[in-house]
This record gives sequence, C-alpha cells and structure tokens, in this order.
Amino acid sequence: MAFDAWMRQTQTGMEAALDRFLPAATSIPARLHQAMRYAVLDGGKRVRPLLVFAAGELFATPLTVAQRAAAAVEMIHAYSLVHDDMPCMDDDALRRGKPTVHVQYDEATALLVGDALQSQAFVVLAEAGAEIGAEIDSARQIVMLRLLAQASGSLGMCGGQAIDLASVGLNLSLAELEQMHKLKTGALLRASVLLGAWGGKALAPAEIEALEAYGTAIGLAFQVVDDILDATADSATLGKTAGKDAADNKPTYVSILGLPESQALAEKLRNDAHQALAIFGNKARRLRELADLIVQRKA
Amino acid sequence: MAFDAWMRQTQTGMEAALDRFLPAATSIPARLHQAMRYAVLDGGKRVRPLLVFAAGELFATPLTVAQRAAAAVEMIHAYSLVHDDMPCMDDDALRRGKPTVHVQYDEATALLVGDALQSQAFVVLAEAGAEIGAEIDSARQIVMLRLLAQASGSLGMCGGQAIDLASVGLNLSLAELEQMHKLKTGALLRASVLLGAWGGKALAPAEIEALEAYGTAIGLAFQVVDDILDATADSATLGKTAGKDAADNKPTYVSILGLPESQALAEKLRNDAHQALAIFGNKARRLRELADLIVQRKA
Repeated sequence: MAFDAWMRQTQTGMEAALDRFLPAATSIPARLHQAMRYAVLDGGKRVRPLLVFAAGELFATPLTVAQRAAAAVEMIHAYSLVHDDMPCMDDDALRRGKPTVHVQYDEATALLVGDALQSQAFVVLAEAGAEIGAEIDSARQIVMLRLLAQASGSLGMCGGQAIDLASVGLNLSLAELEQMHKLKTGALLRASVLLGAWGGKALAPAEIEALEAYGTAIGLAFQVVDDILDATADSATLGKTAGKDAADNKPTYVSILGLPESQALAEKLRNDAHQALAIFGNKARRLRELADLIVQRKA
Repeated sequence: MAFDAWMRQTQTGMEAALDRFLPAATSIPARLHQAMRYAVLDGGKRVRPLLVFAAGELFATPLTVAQRAAAAVEMIHAYSLVHDDMPCMDDDALRRGKPTVHVQYDEATALLVGDALQSQAFVVLAEAGAEIGAEIDSARQIVMLRLLAQASGSLGMCGGQAIDLASVGLNLSLAELEQMHKLKTGALLRASVLLGAWGGKALAPAEIEALEAYGTAIGLAFQVVDDILDATADSATLGKTAGKDAADNKPTYVSILGLPESQALAEKLRNDAHQALAIFGNKARRLRELADLIVQRKA
C-alpha cells in the first residue's frame, strides 16, 4: 500500500477507535464528556498514532493492541494541548482550527478535561488485557503502561513543559533547547514508537536502543520543523496561532540557529532516523516514511 | 497493636515511602519537583493510604506492594487538591495549613504539578513489578492499575468534580448529592480499599462486593463528616478554609438534611461499613477501626 493510503486508513481507523475509547457524550457528566470528545476527536495529524502503527508493523502487533496504545498516547497528547492552551500557560484561543477548550467551554472544564483524559489514557491501556489475551503478555502490558506513565510525567512531557515555561525570555544554548524538547515533545513521540513495538513482542536491548535512537531523532526533527513552520507559515495553514513563539519571546531552533541551519538540522535528523532503523530492514518501511513526513510536512 | 500506634506507624512509613517515590528535589526540572513534593509531603491525614494498608491486612499484602499502591492513591488525591484549589476551580489559598501550590509557586506550576503527580501515581504502580515478583501477579498488577485509572477519571473522581462544579447554586436532591460524592471522593476511597486487597490476592466476587459496600459506606460517611466539620469547625483545626461550602453556595449534607440528621446518617453509614465486613471476621479489624475514625474525626 502506498504511504498516503496507509496514512489515511490509519487516521480513519484511529478516529473510530478514539470515538470508541472515549466515554459517550450522553453519559454523566455529559458536559465533561462532550468537552473531552471535543478536545480529542476530529482534529490533529495523529502523528503519535501513526508512529504506534508504523512501529507495530515491525513485530506484527495485533490491530486492537495498536489501537489501544495509539488511543492512549493520543489522549495524553490531547490533554497536554488542552492544559497548555489555558490562560495560566500559553493562553491560546485557537487549536486545530477550532476554539480551544477553555474558550469553547470554560477554564474549570478545560482543567478537568485534561485531568480526565490523562486518566482515560491509562484506562484504555489497562483495559487491553482481554484483547492482548495470553497470560504471559500481562508483563508486556505493564511495560507499556510504565512507558506511557514515565513519558507523561515530570521526567518526560510535564518536565519539558516546566522547562519551557521557565525558559521564556532566557537565552538558551542549543543543548538546553534540545534537552527541553527531548522531554516536552520527544518523550511521548519516543514512547509512541516503543509502545507500538512492545505490543508485538518483548523487545531485545538492541531493538530498544534502535527504536529509542529513531524516536529521539524524529522527536527533535518534529520540533525543529515546528519551529520552522511557526516562523514561516500562517495561522490558517497551521490551524493554530502562527508566530506565537517569537511573540512570546520563546527560544526556538530558528531563533538560535537561523532558518537555513534549522532546515539543514532537520535533514540531518531525518538521516539519523533512517540509519537507526537499519537493523530492521524492510519491515521498518513505514517508520522511514514517517520520518520523511515529519520533516517534509507543511503544517 | 493498638489502633493509634498502628495508624502512626503507617503514617510515618507512608511519609518515607512518598519521599522515596517522588522524584528528588534536585532532579531537573528542580522547581517542578520541589513543588510536587510540597504538594504531597508533610501533610494530610493519609486516609487513603490507611485504607490501603487496612485492606492489605485482609490478605497479607506484602509491605512494598501496599506502599506503592498507597503512594499511588495518595498522589492522585494530592494532585486533585492542587487542581481543585486553583483560581478557576475553588480558588482556595490554604490547604493542610500551608499556602496552596498556586499561591506558594504560581498557577502554571500548580497545573503542571497536578498533571505530573497523576502520571507519577501510575509510574509508581507500574514499576511495582519487581517487588510483586512472580509472573502470575502481573495480571493482578494490571487490575490495580485499571482500578486506579477508572477511579481517577471522568467516571470517577474527575466526573464527581465536574458534577460538583455544575451544582453550585442548585438545589440538589439527596440522591443527586450522594451520586456526586460517590464519584468525587467515593471513587478513590473505594479504590484504596480494593487496591490494598488486590495486592494480596486475586479477589473472589463476594470479596469484591463486600469491599465495595464497605468502601461506598465509608466514602459517603467521609463526606457527611466533611460537611459537618465544614459547618462546625474552624479553619485552624481543619487546616483549610472552614465554612467554604456555605460561602460558595454549595449543597452539602448539612444544608439539605440539617446537622442532627447528618450526624445520624454518619452513624448509620458507619454501621453499614461494619456489617459489610462481616465475611472477613477478625482480619477486618483495621478496616472497622478506620470506619470509626472516619466518623469520629474532628478535622
């Protein structure tokens, strides 16, 4: 299957899976559930689910397991966006082309939507047992739950967010900027790759190492390209407020390296990602294609 | 051992366990980790950990497993307090006798502290594998993770909080008030009991039923007594702002039933809790004593 068709098929399947794994809009408390669905459904490129599914192709991860892992990761991502957009954080009004949750609903609801989406991510993954099936696989399921929790917390995504907040107006070095992004967006992107693979089999150390190297490279590439797009694209294309980082006086790859150097770095990281996949041979095709997508995307 | 000595021993042990299961105050990002520790350590009655340990006595739950389960539940509780105290929710300045996290630090940090504590709760429980040990127990560990996630989310604690927010200024019926509290505080208290027991063995349906009945009764009793104390005690005794519910025009057991009826209800719920434990005989001594504590507490 061509990459574009695979991507659209995966995205369509994910929309249905997310719909199924979120509480119904009519279940009590209905307003909270409606707001949770508003935050998650019908939006986003689903990069993390795509990574889960692409990594799942390495070891024939069952569809239902990949769907649960992908939904869990996407719910963590969606909750982080809801909280990041709140007035006490980035105070943003537009996300995925729609009003942000605290604008569409209210701040208290946005806070609870984020909190409840994080819980729901762990519900979805912890309920996977019946589908993963065999007793021996409970141990792998726990590895997946642990990876997700570690990637989400203060030594992962939340920690990166805290460093980001503290860095406003500071002159970060390139190493400091990289460290921040390795946590803020990188941790969950790496976890997406690892969860997809662990869903298929217990990974050997060399496999973990290769997937972490790939995840680190595409994670940084993702952020470099984000910074390039923030500096060069318009809000309508991005579906969120463009030029926000510069306006907020936040350090970016473009502000530290300049545009041409940033573009060269993105290209280098794409090559790093491809090289990390060498041990997997042809089975890593989707992961290679995703590295290309992440670097070549226009929004 | 007398109840008071057991309680103090458990609380002291929990303080050390929480200290161990939280990231070090010096690890990056240090300010976030300091704020997480501020939110969790050195405060609170540790009712949920006490429930975990008391239920653990039923089936000889290993100490390290009980500690991890108790720490996870307490981190969920602590995160909910941090978020509930924020300006967009209850806007409270005092908690456990100290300035609330957003007052001591700032709002953005309070938001991230809550988010990261929720993740850390799942980290602590998901990392328990090496201590729980035997392969067969991975399945029980997943049950515990699932129970914690379900109790925390939109069909548990977060859902109750959403109903609570929506009920300000409304005339709730007793049934509606009960439904709200069954989620808002009840879900996590019930989960504490179940996690403590599951840490010892795979529970039979009759055991689950009995523990859920106990958890439901003490959960409601806890809230009835909270409302009684909010109406009758002072802020210094409570370590938080007294009279807040009435000032916020929130429905309470006291506002709906009056004080004497509320006290009678607390007493009835204590008896319900005791009766639910009948099938466990003497092994349920600590759970019975905790039901008494919850009803008789003065703060």
